[in-house]
Amino acid sequence: MSTPVPPGFARPSGRLPAQLREVRIERGYTRHAEGSVLVSFGETRVLCTASVDAKAPAFLRGKGEGWVTAEYGMLPRATHTRSDREAARGRQGGRTLEIQRLIGRSLRACVDRAALGERTITLDCDVLQADGGTRTAAITGAYVALVDACRWLLARREIARDPIHGAVAAVSVGIWRGVPVLDLDYAEDVDCDTDMNVVMNDGGGFVEVQGTAEGHAFRRDELDALLDLAQQGCARLFALQRAALEGA
Amino acid sequence: MSTPVPPGFARPSGRLPAQLREVRIERGYTRHAEGSVLVSFGETRVLCTASVDAKAPAFLRGKGEGWVTAEYGMLPRATHTRSDREAARGRQGGRTLEIQRLIGRSLRACVDRAALGERTITLDCDVLQADGGTRTAAITGAYVALVDACRWLLARREIARDPIHGAVAAVSVGIWRGVPVLDLDYAEDVDCDTDMNVVMNDGGGFVEVQGTAEGHAFRRDELDALLDLAQQGCARLFALQRAALEGA
Amino acid sequence: MSTPVPPGFARPSGRLPAQLREVRIERGYTRHAEGSVLVSFGETRVLCTASVDAKAPAFLRGKGEGWVTAEYGMLPRATHTRSDREAARGRQGGRTLEIQRLIGRSLRACVDRAALGERTITLDCDVLQADGGTRTAAITGAYVALVDACRWLLARREIARDPIHGAVAAVSVGIWRGVPVLDLDYAEDVDCDTDMNVVMNDGGGFVEVQGTAEGHAFRRDELDALLDLAQQGCARLFALQRAALEGA
Amino acid sequence: MSTPVPPGFARPSGRLPAQLREVRIERGYTRHAEGSVLVSFGETRVLCTASVDAKAPAFLRGKGEGWVTAEYGMLPRATHTRSDREAARGRQGGRTLEIQRLIGRSLRACVDRAALGERTITLDCDVLQADGGTRTAAITGAYVALVDACRWLLARREIARDPIHGAVAAVSVGIWRGVPVLDLDYAEDVDCDTDMNVVMNDGGGFVEVQGTAEGHAFRRDELDALLDLAQQGCARLFALQRAALEGA
Amino acid sequence: MSTPVPPGFARPSGRLPAQLREVRIERGYTRHAEGSVLVSFGETRVLCTASVDAKAPAFLRGKGEGWVTAEYGMLPRATHTRSDREAARGRQGGRTLEIQRLIGRSLRACVDRAALGERTITLDCDVLQADGGTRTAAITGAYVALVDACRWLLARREIARDPIHGAVAAVSVGIWRGVPVLDLDYAEDVDCDTDMNVVMNDGGGFVEVQGTAEGHAFRRDELDALLDLAQQGCARLFALQRAALEGA
Amino acid sequence: MSTPVPPGFARPSGRLPAQLREVRIERGYTRHAEGSVLVSFGETRVLCTASVDAKAPAFLRGKGEGWVTAEYGMLPRATHTRSDREAARGRQGGRTLEIQRLIGRSLRACVDRAALGERTITLDCDVLQADGGTRTAAITGAYVALVDACRWLLARREIARDPIHGAVAAVSVGIWRGVPVLDLDYAEDVDCDTDMNVVMNDGGGFVEVQGTAEGHAFRRDELDALLDLAQQGCARLFALQRAALEGA
Repeated sequence: MSTPVPPGFARPSGRLPAQLREVRIERGYTRHAEGSVLVSFGETRVLCTASVDAKAPAFLRGKGEGWVTAEYGMLPRATHTRSDREAARGRQGGRTLEIQRLIGRSLRACVDRAALGERTITLDCDVLQADGGTRTAAITGAYVALVDACRWLLARREIARDPIHGAVAAVSVGIWRGVPVLDLDYAEDVDCDTDMNVVMNDGGGFVEVQGTAEGHAFRRDELDALLDLAQQGCARLFALQRAALEGA
Repeated sequence: MSTPVPPGFARPSGRLPAQLREVRIERGYTRHAEGSVLVSFGETRVLCTASVDAKAPAFLRGKGEGWVTAEYGMLPRATHTRSDREAARGRQGGRTLEIQRLIGRSLRACVDRAALGERTITLDCDVLQADGGTRTAAITGAYVALVDACRWLLARREIARDPIHGAVAAVSVGIWRGVPVLDLDYAEDVDCDTDMNVVMNDGGGFVEVQGTAEGHAFRRDELDALLDLAQQGCARLFALQRAALEGA
Repeated sequence: MSTPVPPGFARPSGRLPAQLREVRIERGYTRHAEGSVLVSFGETRVLCTASVDAKAPAFLRGKGEGWVTAEYGMLPRATHTRSDREAARGRQGGRTLEIQRLIGRSLRACVDRAALGERTITLDCDVLQADGGTRTAAITGAYVALVDACRWLLARREIARDPIHGAVAAVSVGIWRGVPVLDLDYAEDVDCDTDMNVVMNDGGGFVEVQGTAEGHAFRRDELDALLDLAQQGCARLFALQRAALEGA
Repeated sequence: MSTPVPPGFARPSGRLPAQLREVRIERGYTRHAEGSVLVSFGETRVLCTASVDAKAPAFLRGKGEGWVTAEYGMLPRATHTRSDREAARGRQGGRTLEIQRLIGRSLRACVDRAALGERTITLDCDVLQADGGTRTAAITGAYVALVDACRWLLARREIARDPIHGAVAAVSVGIWRGVPVLDLDYAEDVDCDTDMNVVMNDGGGFVEVQGTAEGHAFRRDELDALLDLAQQGCARLFALQRAALEGA
Repeated sequence: MSTPVPPGFARPSGRLPAQLREVRIERGYTRHAEGSVLVSFGETRVLCTASVDAKAPAFLRGKGEGWVTAEYGMLPRATHTRSDREAARGRQGGRTLEIQRLIGRSLRACVDRAALGERTITLDCDVLQADGGTRTAAITGAYVALVDACRWLLARREIARDPIHGAVAAVSVGIWRGVPVLDLDYAEDVDCDTDMNVVMNDGGGFVEVQGTAEGHAFRRDELDALLDLAQQGCARLFALQRAALEGA
Repeated sequence: MSTPVPPGFARPSGRLPAQLREVRIERGYTRHAEGSVLVSFGETRVLCTASVDAKAPAFLRGKGEGWVTAEYGMLPRATHTRSDREAARGRQGGRTLEIQRLIGRSLRACVDRAALGERTITLDCDVLQADGGTRTAAITGAYVALVDACRWLLARREIARDPIHGAVAAVSVGIWRGVPVLDLDYAEDVDCDTDMNVVMNDGGGFVEVQGTAEGHAFRRDELDALLDLAQQGCARLFALQRAALEGA
C-alpha cells in the first residue's frame, strides 16, 4: 500500500490498513452436505454448504450442462439487534437477493459447466454471526465447499473430470477516515460510506467489482488504491483456501 | 422401565431403551444475543438465541406484562437431502409453524410475565444439523438461553426479580420395534410411526404431551410406559441444564 | 369417572363432568360432494365434505397407493367476534395449518391406502359456527363423510374392497375449576388453560394425544383421569357414528 | 314478458321463462353475527352474515360516517368439482374480488352512512352450495342480514335512526336458446354465453347492470327484454325480503 | 340525444354532451411487440401491445384453438397522486383484475379462436397517463394492436385466415349534473356516481354493459338514454379504428 | 481511448468504441408528476417521473431530513419476448430490486437531504422499450426529473434552498470482441459477458462501479480502460442533461 498512513490513525481492531482479520476455514462442519465449511473472517461466521442435486435447472435441461447457484440467509440474531426472519415476513429482501445473485455469479466464474454435467450445486451461505463482510466471507468459504462437492462427485465417479478451474475469493475494501483499508469490520463499515466488494480469481482477474459511495464519491486515485488493496487481500485468501483444501 | 426388552433387540445407536443421546449445552455460542446456546442431542444441533426487545407485542400494550415467543427454522442442508429455504418459498410450512408455536407455549409455562414487564423475549431456534428430535432439543436449549437473557436483564437492573419459575425441558419417546424407547434419533424416527414429544417442568408437571400414531395406535399401557420414560429423560435433562447454568 | 365432584360444582351448560354435548351427524347436507356431513357438538357446527380426486398426489404417483388429506377453515363470523378471512389475508394461520394436519393424520389412521388405489380424498372441514371443540367435531364428522365417499367408490365399482378399517373419533377433555371434564364448550375453554384433544380408534387405540398446559401443568394422575374420560367420550361417539351410517 | 316462447322450448328445471326458482330466506341461521341469513335460490345456498365493528375504516376516520363492505367466498366443494381453497392458494381470485366489490357497492346504495355513524358493517357471503346465481342470491340475502344488524344497533340504542333507506335485491337474466329467461341455474348458465346480473332498489332504480356477452352480442331489443325480466324478478324478491323481515 | 340540455349546462372541457374527446390511435409505438398502439382519449394515454405466444394456455392444449387474454397496469404516477406500484405491494388489486378480465372478454368477442390456432395473444394495456376512461381507451386501442398482431401472423403465413371478425370498441357514459354525457373525463368522473362502460361490436351488438350507480340509481329512461349515447360514441370510434388501420 | 481497435472491428450499430448512442431527454412527458422525463439512449426508452410526497419515510420521521428513493419496472413487452408482469407474479425479481436500489443510492448522492426537509421524492423509472442499458438511462433521466421536482418545490416556496448539489449520470461500458466499448446496446450486451455500469458525479467522482465478469475476468488494464471510457461517456451525458435543463 503506497498511501501514507496519517499519524495517529488507528483502526478499531488495531489492524494495519492492509491487514485481513484472522480468517479460518473449517471443512466438514456439518455432516449431511457434500461440502460444508464454516468460514470466519474475525467475528463474522458463515456456514457454507454445497448440495449436489442430480438435475439441472429447467432452463438447462437437455443441454448437457450443469449449474451452480447460491442462497444467502442471516440468522435473525446474527446481528447486533434482531432482524425479522425472512421466512416469517414471506419474502427475501432486496439485499438478500442481491447478495445471493452475487455469490452465484462469482462461483460460476470458476466452474466448467459442461464438466459438471446435468447437475445443480446449490451453495447455501447462512450467516451465524455478522461483523461486516458477510458476503465476501461467504464467497471465500463457498468456494471451498464447492471444491469439496466436486471432489465428492469425482470420488464417486459421477463425473470424469474436475469442473473447477482456478479459485475464487472475495474481500471488501473501503476508505475509512481518509485511508484505504482492507477487510472492513462492522465498526468500520457503519462509519464509512465508501466501500467496495471485490471478487477475484487466482489468475489475477477481476470477477466482480462493486463499489458504492453513497456519501463521498471515489476519486479515480482512491479507486486505484482500493483495487491494489483488494488484490493483496485476495492473494492471501487464495493461500488460505489452498491450505484448507490440502487438509484432507 | 418395566417393559422387558426382547432378546436381540438393539437400537441403531447401540443405546439402551431408556438412554438419552449425549447432550451438550454450550452457552455464549454467538456474541450479540442476550442468550445464545448451542444445544446438541447427539448429532442434532440447534442454535438457540434469546433476544430481548424493550416492547411488549401489540395485544399486551399497557397491561404491564411481557411476552415470550419463538421462531424455528432449519437450514436448508441441515437434513440428509436439501429442503427448500422457507424464505425463498415465501412462507413457513405447517410443520415449522406448529413447532414454533409449541416452543413458545412451552417456555411461557415457566415465565412470570408480570415480572418480565412490558418486554418481548424472542427465542430463535435454528437447526444447524438434524438427526431427529430437533423440537425437543430446541425447547431444552432455548430454556437455557432464556435464563441467560433474564440474568442479563437482572444484571442491568432492568427488572427487579427473576421472571423464571422452574425449568422446562423436552424429550421424545416412541415405540420402536415394539419397545418403548427414549430420545429417538433419525434412524429410529423414520422407522417408527408411534412417537410422542413430551415437555415437562421440573416440578414433575406435564406442559405438553403430543403423541401421534399415524400407523399403529397406542394402547393405553404403551402410552403409560412412554410417559414413564419421558419423566426419566426430562429428569436427566434438568440436571444437565442446571450444570450448564452453573458454569458462569 | 372416579374423581369426586366438589360440592357446588356446575358446568356452564349444566352438564355432568363426563357428559358430551348433544351430538348430531347429518349426512347428505350438500349435494355435490361424494360425502357431505354436517356435524354438531352442541352449538359447534362443522360442514365436512369428502371429495374424491382420481389422482394420487405427486409424491405417491406410480406407487399404487392413495392419500387422504384435510383442509380446515372457519367462516369469518363463526366466532363471537369476526376474524379476518384467511383468503383475504393471503395465508392460512398456524392454528389452521396445525388443525388440518391433525385431521389428515387422524383419518389416514383408519384407511388402507393400497385399497384406495391411486386416488386422493380431500376432507374439507369448514366451521359454520364455533362453540369450542371444532377440531374434534371435524374429525368425528369427517370420518362419516369419508365412509360415504368410500361407499360411493364401491358402489361405482371403482374400488374392489373397502379401504376403511375401523372408525376414528375425537373429543376434548380438560380440567375446569379443578375437575376433569369431557367435551369443553367455549365458556369452559376460555377459562381453562389445561386441555387435551384425544383421537381414538374403535379398537381402543390412541391415534393422537395433544395436551397443552400453558398455565397449570398436568400432574400425572390428572393426565390419567383425562385419558379415562376421553375413552368414555369416544366410545359414545363411535356409537353415534354407527347409528348415522346405518341411516342409508 | 312479450317475447313469444318458441314451441317445444323447455328450461332444464321446467320453469317458465319469467319464473324465479324457489327462494327461501332464513334469518338467524347462526348465532354470533348481528345479522345471519341463509338464502336459497333453488339449490344455490349462501350464508350471509353481517358483522358490526365499532370502527370506521381508516379512510373515513373522523368524518362521522360509516361503511358497509362485503367479502365473498365459496366453500371448496360448493361446486360440482372441488376447487382450490383460496386461503391455501394464498390469494383471492379475480372473480372473487369482482363479486365482493359488487356486493359491497350494491348494499352501500341503500345505506345512509351518516346515520350509521363511525361503524363498519361487513357482509360475509359464503356459498355453501352453488347452482348458478350465487352473487345475486348473496346480494338479496345480505340485504336482509344488513337490516337485522341495523335493527340490532337500533335496539341497543347505539344509533338513533335507521340507516337503511329502501331495499336492494338482485337477479340474473340471460338469453338461453334464444329466449330471455329469469334467474339462470347452473345448467342454463354453462350453456348460455349472454347473461346479465341486475341489482335494483325497491324504488325501481337500477343500482348495477352487468351484462356480458362473450359469445353472441346482445341486440338492443334483447337488452331491453332482459331489463324487463329483471324488473319483474326483483319486484318478487322485494316481496320475499319484506315477508322474511316481518317474521320477527 | 333527445334529452334537452338545461340552460347554463357546461362540461368542464367545454364539450357537448354527446361529444367524444380527441381520440388518437398511434400504431407501431414500440418496436418489439407484434402489435403496439398508443391510444389517447384526450389526456388519457394507454400503451397497448399485442404479444403472440406460440402456445395455447394449458386448459386449451390439444383442442386446436387459441386464446386472447389481457393484462392491465397503471404506472404509479399516471394519476394525480402517486399510487403504490402493484409489483411492490405483491398483488394486483381488485380494480386491476376486474379491468383486465373485462378487456380480455371484450376482445375475445371478435376473435375466431379456431382460426387463431394453438396460440395465445396477450394484450398488455399500460396506462401512461390517466384522465378518466382508461379501460375504454384500453379496449379501443387493444383492438387495433390485436389486428396488427393477426396481420403479422398472416404475413408470415403462420395462420391461413384472419381470426378477426368485426371490430370492438368501448366508451363510457354517465349522468353528470343531471345530463347524460359521453366519454367522461376525470373531472366529470369524480363528480358523478352514475356511470356505465359499454363495449360494442361494429354489428351494433352489445358485448359488455357495466353500469354502476353507487349514489343515485338509474331510472330506466336514463339507462336508455345512456345506451343511445354509447351507440353514437362507439360508431365514431369504429371509424377512427378503421382510419388508423388503413394507415399501413 | 488508447486501446487500438483491431482491423475489421465494427460494432453492430456502426458506432465507434467510445461513441454513445443518440441520447434524448424530453421533459414534461406526462403531466401529473412534479418531474416527468422520457429519456432515450438509442432505442432504449425509459419514462422517469419524480413524485413529491410531503412525508419522510418512517425511519426518518422527526429528523428534519428527506429521502429520495426509486422504483424500477419494465413493461412486459418492452423486450424482444414478453416477460411476466411482476405485479401478476406477485413479486419483484432480484434484478428489479437490485436496479431500483442502485438508482436510489445513485441519486441520493447528489441530494442535500436536510435542504429537502421532511419529504420523500420517489423516482419511478419504467422501461417502455429496452435495447440495453436501461438502468444507466434510468439514472441519467431520473436526475433530470429530480431537478424538475426540486424546482417545483422551490417555485412554490416549500423549500428555501436547492437540495441538488452537482449532477449524476450513468453509462455502461464493456469488452466486446476484445475491445472496450461505451454504452452497449442489446446486440452487444448478449454477446459480451464482461460489462460494467458506472455512475459518476460531475465533479469527476465515482458514485457506483458495478462490474461483472461471469465469463472472462477483467484484467486490471482492461478495468482501467473501461473506467476511462466511462469518464468520457459521463462527461458527454452531463452536457446533455444541462442542455435539457436549460430548456425551461
